[in-house]
Amino acid sequence: MKVVWIGAGRLASSLAPALRQAGHETLQVYSRTAESASRLAAVLDCPFTDDAEAVRTDADVYLFSVKDSVLEELARRICPRVGEALCLHTAGSMPMTVFSGQARRYGVLYPMQTFSLSHPVDFGGIPCFVEGCDAEVCGEVKRLARSVSQRVTVMDSARRRYLHLAAVFACNFANHCYALSARVLQSQGIPFDVMLPLIDETARKVHSLPPVEAQTGPAVRYDRNVLEAQRALLEGMPELQSLYDEMSRSIHRMALQEKKNEGVGYD
Amino acid sequence: MKVVWIGAGRLASSLAPALRQAGHETLQVYSRTAESASRLAAVLDCPFTDDAEAVRTDADVYLFSVKDSVLEELARRICPRVGEALCLHTAGSMPMTVFSGQARRYGVLYPMQTFSLSHPVDFGGIPCFVEGCDAEVCGEVKRLARSVSQRVTVMDSARRRYLHLAAVFACNFANHCYALSARVLQSQGIPFDVMLPLIDETARKVHSLPPVEAQTGPAVRYDRNVLEAQRALLEGMPELQSLYDEMSRSIHRMALQEKKNEGVGYD
Repeated sequence: MKVVWIGAGRLASSLAPALRQAGHETLQVYSRTAESASRLAAVLDCPFTDDAEAVRTDADVYLFSVKDSVLEELARRICPRVGEALCLHTAGSMPMTVFSGQARRYGVLYPMQTFSLSHPVDFGGIPCFVEGCDAEVCGEVKRLARSVSQRVTVMDSARRRYLHLAAVFACNFANHCYALSARVLQSQGIPFDVMLPLIDETARKVHSLPPVEAQTGPAVRYDRNVLEAQRALLEGMPELQSLYDEMSRSIHRMALQEKKNEGVGYD
Repeated sequence: MKVVWIGAGRLASSLAPALRQAGHETLQVYSRTAESASRLAAVLDCPFTDDAEAVRTDADVYLFSVKDSVLEELARRICPRVGEALCLHTAGSMPMTVFSGQARRYGVLYPMQTFSLSHPVDFGGIPCFVEGCDAEVCGEVKRLARSVSQRVTVMDSARRRYLHLAAVFACNFANHCYALSARVLQSQGIPFDVMLPLIDETARKVHSLPPVEAQTGPAVRYDRNVLEAQRALLEGMPELQSLYDEMSRSIHRMALQEKKNEGVGYD
């Protein structure tokens, strides 16, 4: 397919080369700034523009990968000019209907992953969630997604919102726990890389155990001695202390529920 | 060295076979219950007991790997009977001085990892933090730790407490984020394994980027539309909603600080 990219951020910079590798041709990259547009266009060896009115109208598919706050406006400006071409966005939380009334054929291709410019990922294993405005379009989006990923699932916008929310917990919030850990270490001049084997194993364990069963540490049994001693270490960091308390209580409550569900008394 | 294990929990069940592999002989396993003592003793092919008074006194090293709350009492009962043998505990948060007045030669060997009975780990890459009551003992603990791990560091009890606290954030709290994610998915009947590629990549990224730089998602820029919509999805789960709010605010605050430290305006 002939592709035009609307947006040149982290997601586009990962998906666009994967699509190219799969044999799709990129005609053009549009981005709000010439700097980011040209960076991605250089990788794809294609023209770029920072003028939404200059977006070409002869592509088969327009991939919108922009901030949620500007998606609606760009859809309004570009979709009506592209006729029967597919208009897809890549956002977890935005409904497919952001395109309705603007595009004739539209859908969603949401790759659930955390992307960085400096960090190439292998697209093949990334779960992609697709949706189309009708069965034919849905089939087309599915085929496009399958050309880059082995894990393609059809999911509607309502459920995809929960998926994105779950991803915020598993990715952004877990990463923030790493960041808070780094801050504690920094206060003692201990380098962060000492945590990497633990971080890797924590991620590895939930491949074979449900997270609630994989849990260890002082909060599971609400070991007051350790909990009090640890929160005392955070006296000078009230934000970390408050999160420490809330996370510890939540871990303990979930462990209690788990025991209850198993019908086992909690000693 | 000739080893006696005091405790047969997750940590002992990982470290004991590694020590055996490295050529150390286990003379006996003690545990509060014959069930857990016999399970580990079977792996190590050695006798076991559930009677603290029946612990042998002819070993070179006693490894105490028990709940913090019972460590002091077991040290009091066992250490005075073992003469010049090394008494070591494996706990992150307990000071080495829990042994003082009880043992003549004592220290700490803290392997920083999350262990499970069902999940063998390769001990070689696990960072171990050691301490001894004097330089000679410290050298002996270091040698023992180096026989199973390539990452051995001397660290005193005061700093080790911070290390353990940082581990709670990076492991227990990150794992709890996975558990909360699983709960959101469960509410929609979506299987948890869909999150695994995202979880793996989130862990992988911090091998090459500081966590605060690796952060993505709606909270970094405090994207109100997405944040409000996501917290609305959690209406029926007040505990998750409250953690969602607090984590999002904390992520945003840390991103602001990071920008400030870089001397760059935050748009």
